[in-house]
Amino acid sequence: MALNIHIYPKREEWDALLRRPTKDAAELEAAVGEVLRTVREGGDKALRELEWRFDHVRLQDLEVSQQEMDEALETVSPELLGAMELAHRNIETFHRAQAFKGERQRVTDGVVCWQKSIAIEKVGLYVPGGTAPLFSTVLMLATPARTAGCREIVLCTPPGRDGHVNPAILAAAKVAGVRRIMKLGGAQAIAAMAYGTESVPKVYKILGPGNQYVTCAKQMVSMAGVAIDMPAGPSEVMVLADEGGNPAFVAADLLSQAEHGVDSQVLLLTTSESMARKVADEVESRLPLLPRRETAAQSLANSRLIVLRSDEEMMEMANLYAPEHLIIETQNYMELAEKVVNAGSVFLGSLTPESAGDYASGTNHTLPTNGHATAYSGVNLDTFCRKVTFQHIDEKGIASIGRAVELMAEAEGLEAHAGAMRLRRERTEGTKTEGA
Amino acid sequence: MALNIHIYPKREEWDALLRRPTKDAAELEAAVGEVLRTVREGGDKALRELEWRFDHVRLQDLEVSQQEMDEALETVSPELLGAMELAHRNIETFHRAQAFKGERQRVTDGVVCWQKSIAIEKVGLYVPGGTAPLFSTVLMLATPARTAGCREIVLCTPPGRDGHVNPAILAAAKVAGVRRIMKLGGAQAIAAMAYGTESVPKVYKILGPGNQYVTCAKQMVSMAGVAIDMPAGPSEVMVLADEGGNPAFVAADLLSQAEHGVDSQVLLLTTSESMARKVADEVESRLPLLPRRETAAQSLANSRLIVLRSDEEMMEMANLYAPEHLIIETQNYMELAEKVVNAGSVFLGSLTPESAGDYASGTNHTLPTNGHATAYSGVNLDTFCRKVTFQHIDEKGIASIGRAVELMAEAEGLEAHAGAMRLRRERTEGTKTEGA
Repeated sequence: MALNIHIYPKREEWDALLRRPTKDAAELEAAVGEVLRTVREGGDKALRELEWRFDHVRLQDLEVSQQEMDEALETVSPELLGAMELAHRNIETFHRAQAFKGERQRVTDGVVCWQKSIAIEKVGLYVPGGTAPLFSTVLMLATPARTAGCREIVLCTPPGRDGHVNPAILAAAKVAGVRRIMKLGGAQAIAAMAYGTESVPKVYKILGPGNQYVTCAKQMVSMAGVAIDMPAGPSEVMVLADEGGNPAFVAADLLSQAEHGVDSQVLLLTTSESMARKVADEVESRLPLLPRRETAAQSLANSRLIVLRSDEEMMEMANLYAPEHLIIETQNYMELAEKVVNAGSVFLGSLTPESAGDYASGTNHTLPTNGHATAYSGVNLDTFCRKVTFQHIDEKGIASIGRAVELMAEAEGLEAHAGAMRLRRERTEGTKTEGA
Repeated sequence: MALNIHIYPKREEWDALLRRPTKDAAELEAAVGEVLRTVREGGDKALRELEWRFDHVRLQDLEVSQQEMDEALETVSPELLGAMELAHRNIETFHRAQAFKGERQRVTDGVVCWQKSIAIEKVGLYVPGGTAPLFSTVLMLATPARTAGCREIVLCTPPGRDGHVNPAILAAAKVAGVRRIMKLGGAQAIAAMAYGTESVPKVYKILGPGNQYVTCAKQMVSMAGVAIDMPAGPSEVMVLADEGGNPAFVAADLLSQAEHGVDSQVLLLTTSESMARKVADEVESRLPLLPRRETAAQSLANSRLIVLRSDEEMMEMANLYAPEHLIIETQNYMELAEKVVNAGSVFLGSLTPESAGDYASGTNHTLPTNGHATAYSGVNLDTFCRKVTFQHIDEKGIASIGRAVELMAEAEGLEAHAGAMRLRRERTEGTKTEGA
C-alpha cells in the first residue's frame, strides 16, 4: 500500500485534509432509544434478554462472583499482574497529585468564599469487550475514581459467550480496587447504570469508551441528566517531526494508532519531505509483520503525511485539528509544546511513544477525540469530583456589598432578592448604631 | 395561603417529599430539532425569520452596534453601573484565585508528567430575556470567560420588540469586556453559536441559563459535539435552620427564591417546629408586599417546610436532595458545612443570603439544579478551560516502565503498541551498553 503524502498543501485545502469521517446518528438513536426504554421498564429481566440478543449469552447472575474473581486471578501471569500494579501505582501517583486544595479567599471586606472539591458519590465505568480485552481502561477509570474517593463504583463490561468476563479485566479491577462488576455490554449497560435495576445501582456519572451504540446511549442518558465524561469517537494520533527525527520511531507511533481500528485517524506533519518519505517506507516495511495488519492497512489508507513549510504551520495545523494524541518528535519539542492550544494529551521527544501514556506513565488514556479537545479535557481527577462553592458574610461584608446587591436586584425586578439583603443591612446597621 | 409543614416525616416518605416536577421532552425535542435544522441550513436569513416568529421583531443587523452600546450606557444610572463594577471586581477576584498552576510530577524514575490549563478558544454565552433583564448573568458568564483568557466570546440575548437589547444587559457586557453581542434568543441563538452563520461565529462551548427550549437546544447540540455547561432546570433553595435562627431572615430567603418563577423549588429543613411555624407566618405576612407576589405564591404552594429530629437528619435529607442553593442558618453552620456532599453553592450563617451570591459576593450563580449537583459543578474558572496533559520520558523512564508497557500491550493484542515501546527500549539499552 502507498501512504498519502501531501506536500505544501495550500491553506484552502487544510480543512479538507483534516476532515474526519461523520456519521448520521438518527438511525442509531432509534435503536439505542429502544434499548434504553426496555431496560428502564424491564430491569434485570430485560438486561438478561438483551444480553442474549446482543452478546449471545444466557446469564443468571449479572454480577461477577467472588469465585469467578478468584479463578480469574489464578489464570493471569505474575508478570502481567506486576505490570498492571506498576501502571496502577503510576496512574495513582499522577492523579493524586491533581488533588485540589481550595483556599479561603477574602474577596472583599467581610466576604469570604471558597471552593471545595467533593468526590461524586456514585460512578459507573464502562469497559468495552470486543476483539481485545482492554483491561488498561479499567485502570484508567477505576484508579482515579478510587483516588478521588467515589463511594460507589460499578463497572460494566460485556461477558464472552461462555458467560465469563476476560480474566485480565477482572485482574485489573482487583488491582484498582473495584468490587462490583456487572456482566453487561452495549447500550443496555449504560441504561442499567443510568436508571438502576434490581442488580445494578443507579449512578450519577457514567464514564468510559465504547462503540457507537455505547457512545450514543451515553449521550442520550446525558440528556436525561446523568453526567458523562465526554462524547467518544475513533482514536487519533498526530505526530510532528522535523528532519532530525527517527523515522523508525515515527513509523512505529503511526502504526500503533493504525492498529486500533479501521477508522483510527493517523496524521504526520513534518517540515522535511525526506522524513515523510522515510516514514512512509518504514511503515510499509513494518506493516506486514503486524498481527493486526489488515486493520492497520485500512486505517493507513486514510492517513495523511503532510509536509509543511515551518514549525508555525505545523502548530497552526495541529491546533486546528485538535488531536486526541499529539506526539512532538522534533528537536525543539519543548518550544513547540508551549504553543499547544488544542490537544488531548501531548507526548514530547523521541523516547515518549503514545503507548507509554496508553498504559503506564501515569497520565490518563481516556481522551477527547473527534476535535472535542477544543472544549473537553481528558479524564482526570476532576472528572470524578465537583467543586462546591461556600461563602460566609459578616457585618462588614454586608456593608461592603449589601447596597450593590439591592441595586442590582431591584434593577432586575427581583424585589424579594433585594429584600433579603436589605433586612440584613438594616439589622446590622441598627446593631452598629446601637453599639456606637 | 398556607404553607405545607411536614412534621417528622417517616423515612419512606422522604423521596416523595423531595420529588421535583418532571417534564416529557419528546415534543420539545421535535420543535427544537426543527429550529436547529432551519438555522444550520439557512444561516442568517433563517435567524431573521425565526426572530420574527418567536421574538416578534424584524432585524436587519443581528449584532449590537457600537452606537447602540453607547446609547445604552447613557441610560443606565451611575449607581447601578457602580454596583455592576463592584460585582465584576468580586467575581473576577474569586475566579482569578481559581487559576490552576500545574506542576511537573516525576511520576517514576525518568517519567515526568504534568497538566496545563488552557482556555477554550471560542465560547458562546446565552443570557435570557423575559420578564426581568438578567444582566447579572452577563457578569457571571463573561467575567470568568475573560479571566480564563477565552479568545473569542460571543453573547446572544433576545431583543425586545423594538429591536433593541435591554440597556442594563449591554452595560454589564461593557463592564465585563464583551464586544460581540448578537440579538438572538431561544433555540435559534443556540443553533447559531453551535453551527455558525454568516454573522455568528461557531463556538466550542455554549454556556448560560434559559427556558426549556434553550435548555433542550443546548442538550441537542451537545450530542453533536458542542460542549455545554450543564443541563438547566427551575431554580431551587433549601434552607437549614435551628431554633436559634431569625425567622424573618429565613422567610426572606425563601421568598427570594419563590419570586424567581412559578416552578421554583423552595424547601426549609428545621429541627424546630416553632421555627417552622414562625417562618410560615413571616412568609405569609411578607408575601402580599411583593411586586411578584403571584409568582411567589404559586411557587410557595409547592414549597415544603419539613421538621426533622436532628442535624444528622437535616444533612442526610439535604445531600439526598442536592439543592442548587443551600443556606445553613444554624448556630453550628461550619460544622454542618463540613458534611455537605451534594449542593451547588452553600451560604453560611444568618448574614449570608442567597442574593449575595446571586449578584456580588464573587461566587458564580450559574449552578446545577434538578439534582445535578450530584455530578456537576457550578460554573467556575475550569468551565472555560481544559486540562491538557504533557509527558516526557528519558532513557531511565524507558527502563522504568518500558517492559510493563510491552507486557500490557501484548496482553491486549496490540502488538504495534508494544513495538513502539520495544523499539525505544532496544535502542536505549543498546546505547547504554555501548556507553558502558
